Amino acid sequence: MRFVPDFIAQFFTKGSPLYKDLQTMLGFTPTNIALYELALCHRSNNANSTENNERLEFLGDAILGAIIGEHLFTKYPTKPEGYLTDMRSKIVNRKTLNQIALKIGLKSIMKFNEQDYYLRNSLIFGNALEALIGAIYIDKGYATTRTFLRKRILVPFVDIELLENIEVNMKNKLIGWASKQGKTIEFVVLEETMEKGRKRFTVGVLYEDEIIAKSMASNKKEASKIAAEEAIKKLELV
Amino acid sequence: MRFVPDFIAQFFTKGSPLYKDLQTMLGFTPTNIALYELALCHRSNNANSTENNERLEFLGDAILGAIIGEHLFTKYPTKPEGYLTDMRSKIVNRKTLNQIALKIGLKSIMKFNEQDYYLRNSLIFGNALEALIGAIYIDKGYATTRTFLRKRILVPFVDIELLENIEVNMKNKLIGWASKQGKTIEFVVLEETMEKGRKRFTVGVLYEDEIIAKSMASNKKEASKIAAEEAIKKLELV
Repeated sequence: MRFVPDFIAQFFTKGSPLYKDLQTMLGFTPTNIALYELALCHRSNNANSTENNERLEFLGDAILGAIIGEHLFTKYPTKPEGYLTDMRSKIVNRKTLNQIALKIGLKSIMKFNEQDYYLRNSLIFGNALEALIGAIYIDKGYATTRTFLRKRILVPFVDIELLENIEVNMKNKLIGWASKQGKTIEFVVLEETMEKGRKRFTVGVLYEDEIIAKSMASNKKEASKIAAEEAIKKLELV
Repeated sequence: MRFVPDFIAQFFTKGSPLYKDLQTMLGFTPTNIALYELALCHRSNNANSTENNERLEFLGDAILGAIIGEHLFTKYPTKPEGYLTDMRSKIVNRKTLNQIALKIGLKSIMKFNEQDYYLRNSLIFGNALEALIGAIYIDKGYATTRTFLRKRILVPFVDIELLENIEVNMKNKLIGWASKQGKTIEFVVLEETMEKGRKRFTVGVLYEDEIIAKSMASNKKEASKIAAEEAIKKLELV
């Protein structure tokens, strides 16, 4: 109970509907319920800013990075480091996590200031998912956290092939759109730099005679994909 | 052996001096020696770029982040998230890791192009330390990796109080230096922004009427410290 302030552990009680929702979401029975309460408590819920999920979010973010890293390392034994890094950042992306958090129903069992329009539409749910991962880690250890992430998050919600292809489609979408306008889109390498002894490529999207978006990644293909996404956003084609 | 290319596992052999050095460094007996070989193999050692430590470095970096995160979370139960984040980035800082790698003697058992002056003075040893952490994780699991990091890295080489105080001294050093010149140094908040729903402060070092360095952190004190360090570097007072 060391990490949990006293005011917590009075909302969820064994057998309550909230507790049952949590149990269904986790797929196991929590031992230290108060930890999960804390994970689901956004700072807007309490004036005292130390009694919220931010410390657990810090921890969960780190544990999530490690487990996703290991997952990709094992799943793709021949892919280079650049691919693994790029895929991980797509998975642990704040928007992706927030979408997953909403899908598993985290919003309905969270405690936050629901009057606040900005918060209701913000990414605090993905942050709470990270905090929840921190709580699972403290409560049950690394192995259970890994099982939870694989079974309840990665398998049902993260389609790596889809993540790869979404941006390929973006690139095609962009080129197709330009061609319909009778204009041209080109992807040009603007810069090659060295970072940690490896090449990093900055690729720009050249629309007519203007660079309308650019992005840096460890290979040209990846940089082009992200730049295409940026361009699509700027041109409001989404 | 799945993650290890065939050419590896021919340098280190049980009982060889290199193997003994490795064993002393780790404090345990490696099972899959080839993994450690791979971790110590920089890309400059082999023309075939897939047979190097970069994938293991990716993994080790993630595992390191998680274990340091947990260590700080547990050691400082009342510190806010911002403090934990800042401390972790100081510890897993590339220069800090490289210094530790040199201190534990990693350079002498690494395989890299030793003719290359740039490499000899680069940060590839810290990267290899991360790869080594990845190898330990695959070979022995999370618990052994954590024990290795705590006993062999954190306790002997990472002094958190020192890391905190170094920058305090930097600030004093800077103010002292200016006062000797009959000039003034001030720390000014240049910007307050919101990131992930939290405040971030950009603090600048004002020397006479010029901002000579600036830095962003989750609190003003931390931002001032880092900005002071930057200023000291720029003024070449180190």
